[in-house]
Amino acid sequence: MIRIEDVDRAVREAEYAVRGPIVARAQELERQGRRIIYCNIGNPQSLGQKPLTWVRQVLSLVEWPELADKLPAGAVPADVIETARSVLRGSGHGVGAYTDSKGYRFVREAIAEFIHARDGIAADPEAIFLTDGASKGAQSVLRILIGGPRDGIMIPIPQYPLYSATITLYGGAQVGYHLDEAHDWKLSREALDVAFEKARSEGIRVRCIVVINPGNPTGGVLDASNVEMVLAFAREKGLSVIADEVYQTNLWQPGARFVSFASVLEQRGIRDVSLFSLHSTSKGYLGECGHRGGYLECRNVPEPVLEQITKLQSISLCANSVGQVLTYLLVHPPRPGEPSYEQWAREKGEVLEALRRKAELVERGLNRVEGITCNRVAGAMYAFPRIALPPGVTDAEWCMALLEETGICVVDGTGFGQAPGTSHFRTTILPPLDEIETVVKRIAEFHLAFARRRRG
Amino acid sequence: MIRIEDVDRAVREAEYAVRGPIVARAQELERQGRRIIYCNIGNPQSLGQKPLTWVRQVLSLVEWPELADKLPAGAVPADVIETARSVLRGSGHGVGAYTDSKGYRFVREAIAEFIHARDGIAADPEAIFLTDGASKGAQSVLRILIGGPRDGIMIPIPQYPLYSATITLYGGAQVGYHLDEAHDWKLSREALDVAFEKARSEGIRVRCIVVINPGNPTGGVLDASNVEMVLAFAREKGLSVIADEVYQTNLWQPGARFVSFASVLEQRGIRDVSLFSLHSTSKGYLGECGHRGGYLECRNVPEPVLEQITKLQSISLCANSVGQVLTYLLVHPPRPGEPSYEQWAREKGEVLEALRRKAELVERGLNRVEGITCNRVAGAMYAFPRIALPPGVTDAEWCMALLEETGICVVDGTGFGQAPGTSHFRTTILPPLDEIETVVKRIAEFHLAFARRRRG
Repeated sequence: MIRIEDVDRAVREAEYAVRGPIVARAQELERQGRRIIYCNIGNPQSLGQKPLTWVRQVLSLVEWPELADKLPAGAVPADVIETARSVLRGSGHGVGAYTDSKGYRFVREAIAEFIHARDGIAADPEAIFLTDGASKGAQSVLRILIGGPRDGIMIPIPQYPLYSATITLYGGAQVGYHLDEAHDWKLSREALDVAFEKARSEGIRVRCIVVINPGNPTGGVLDASNVEMVLAFAREKGLSVIADEVYQTNLWQPGARFVSFASVLEQRGIRDVSLFSLHSTSKGYLGECGHRGGYLECRNVPEPVLEQITKLQSISLCANSVGQVLTYLLVHPPRPGEPSYEQWAREKGEVLEALRRKAELVERGLNRVEGITCNRVAGAMYAFPRIALPPGVTDAEWCMALLEETGICVVDGTGFGQAPGTSHFRTTILPPLDEIETVVKRIAEFHLAFARRRRG
Repeated sequence: MIRIEDVDRAVREAEYAVRGPIVARAQELERQGRRIIYCNIGNPQSLGQKPLTWVRQVLSLVEWPELADKLPAGAVPADVIETARSVLRGSGHGVGAYTDSKGYRFVREAIAEFIHARDGIAADPEAIFLTDGASKGAQSVLRILIGGPRDGIMIPIPQYPLYSATITLYGGAQVGYHLDEAHDWKLSREALDVAFEKARSEGIRVRCIVVINPGNPTGGVLDASNVEMVLAFAREKGLSVIADEVYQTNLWQPGARFVSFASVLEQRGIRDVSLFSLHSTSKGYLGECGHRGGYLECRNVPEPVLEQITKLQSISLCANSVGQVLTYLLVHPPRPGEPSYEQWAREKGEVLEALRRKAELVERGLNRVEGITCNRVAGAMYAFPRIALPPGVTDAEWCMALLEETGICVVDGTGFGQAPGTSHFRTTILPPLDEIETVVKRIAEFHLAFARRRRG
């Protein structure tokens, strides 16, 4: 019989905090009847966010095309039926057949148009891969880049643990570059150089830099000059770039604009840096996490390398077809004047406005707690506040005690990485608006009591 | 910029023939306007098989729950709405939220009941993992078992290239055991011993044996004594067993019965062999390949090892939710007396009857061709006939020429593995009934001309 010692060491060593021991304990408490507020993971619909009507109407018709003939006139807007028909035509055989390994061509074409509309640059549908969520796209790129323990991947500290877990799993070297908490998690060239040189001095060949923008867990948002700086760095050092841009529509500062890596790459005419950009249907205003839709777009990646990514996709055949359709609906929404447009735009606006208010409430609320300081939540769906803890107490202990005492499930900073000697936790901004005050209040009360108790 | 030499060697070396160069060429020809008959992959709905109405009605309502109020009375049977409601209840938050890492608990419970009804044995929902198709389940198990180049995985020759590709990708050792073509691809203890001893003499530690039953690409079906023999072998050698049982409802011989590995394991009271069983929504009578549904059931696997599999799943969060619902519909179909039952049973019967006739037509047709001999297609969706070729000609050349001259896309035996000096191809049995005669006729004409030409 298989024993735990038989399990490959890399698997055993990989850690994925956002679904780790604290979350397991939360589920256990829930089974015992406790009410748990899950702030551990960006899962909007589990906390009451509604799916967009237009999206679900189309998916419903795509699953059961005969429905179009059963619905009374006016039950859905005409463009819903049109969109479903055009999806079915584009799919060739409906959602029940395997798709191309890269994903439906019509979706990849729509993504290319979306990128063109967003950034004013061309995109090649053959360099786009549809994936089961953005995670799988990131994993494909890391898989081709990591050949052994000396292949280094630069990741931000703090980072999203998909990256650290996958690097461990694939046997590569994690090369952390520190974001500057004192300056709203700013990304500096100096920090990149420090990390790169340290890795090089340890015999590591750095292959790639991962940038998460807007930042998870930090909430930081890069401007054009930041993006340009990273690209210049990558060019100088001969690195590929993974741009994790799944929160590109989650910007909370008035007038903020998302700057994609692809746009700066093209504006600067950079032809010698390979760029892998990720997007997802799980975040933004859709929050369709369960459907596992997303894409990977490659630039300056030679055809033989694209073929290797295609092969990796083909080994498990293709991304799920419904997630692919959802990706189409993300990049090809109703246009003004179309019958569904108004409802779609209203629902989208409501979701984003609620998230914006929540970001503000969480940030302000946490900053009112003595011993907790929280940077600006400029984007994404998380706050990563710093907590002052008595010596010898870890943030993991703090999070576990918070869960036990209040039912609030957040994840310790250790799971994301942090400067030595500092303590943090990550919370999503996703609880319903009317619960956020309560959540913050309970955290405040808990922290006070915890700090007092632990100081003795 | 990334170059092909920068791509990890294991990735470059992995080969996945069913979507390899022949298929790429077929797609190229199709883009040029040629009509291609795709017999390379078990993708029933791409060749005209219809999805089951009940299944798609439920999925339609699950995607858009408000639909229940829009439908005129009687537009769908009452149990469809009931099933959709119970799925939505079971999911907790609908299909838009991430599920548990292992998958929806209510689906895992339904799978346990399905196994109980099928085999009369208990199953533990906590030892069941919902996966994006069965491929991902197989990959999880191989991932935990393979730690380095001396970790051997026994796979049948011929095999389904998911296994060879994944073993290469994870850096393990492929240990092929030969099925006996002269005896309808029989699986013998002797062949297992030969392969095991050869591997051991090469310093390989065999960890696991993969059995595909019904066989892909062979069409062979194991009986209880075969299964018992494999389990006894695994027990004696201390191996885990992966039982790939995705074709369990695709049995074409009158009176044939599927014998699961789990049932024999339990009947014999074996407690010291770890068993990993796979099932899928892509095959059987559903043929819902695009939805990527499936499950992995573990027996005699200790909790700490199950936790490692859970962690692997959690790193990409969860299997897609709609595929999970489809898995529920696979294991929890309408019961006799329920309003949907008759249509469901009729459609299921029609699909399976058509497949049975196709299996017979393909097998008989190919056996009429001089120079081609085809074993009984007792199960699954493929024939793996042997072709007599002039010396120096490979089956890959034969398949490529077949494609160029006839538009028929099949895959060469090399991609699946075969005894040295023999040549084969794999074809699915899936073309529409009225096309199968044509396909076989064209293959016959082609083969005659090809053999004549190549002999000079």
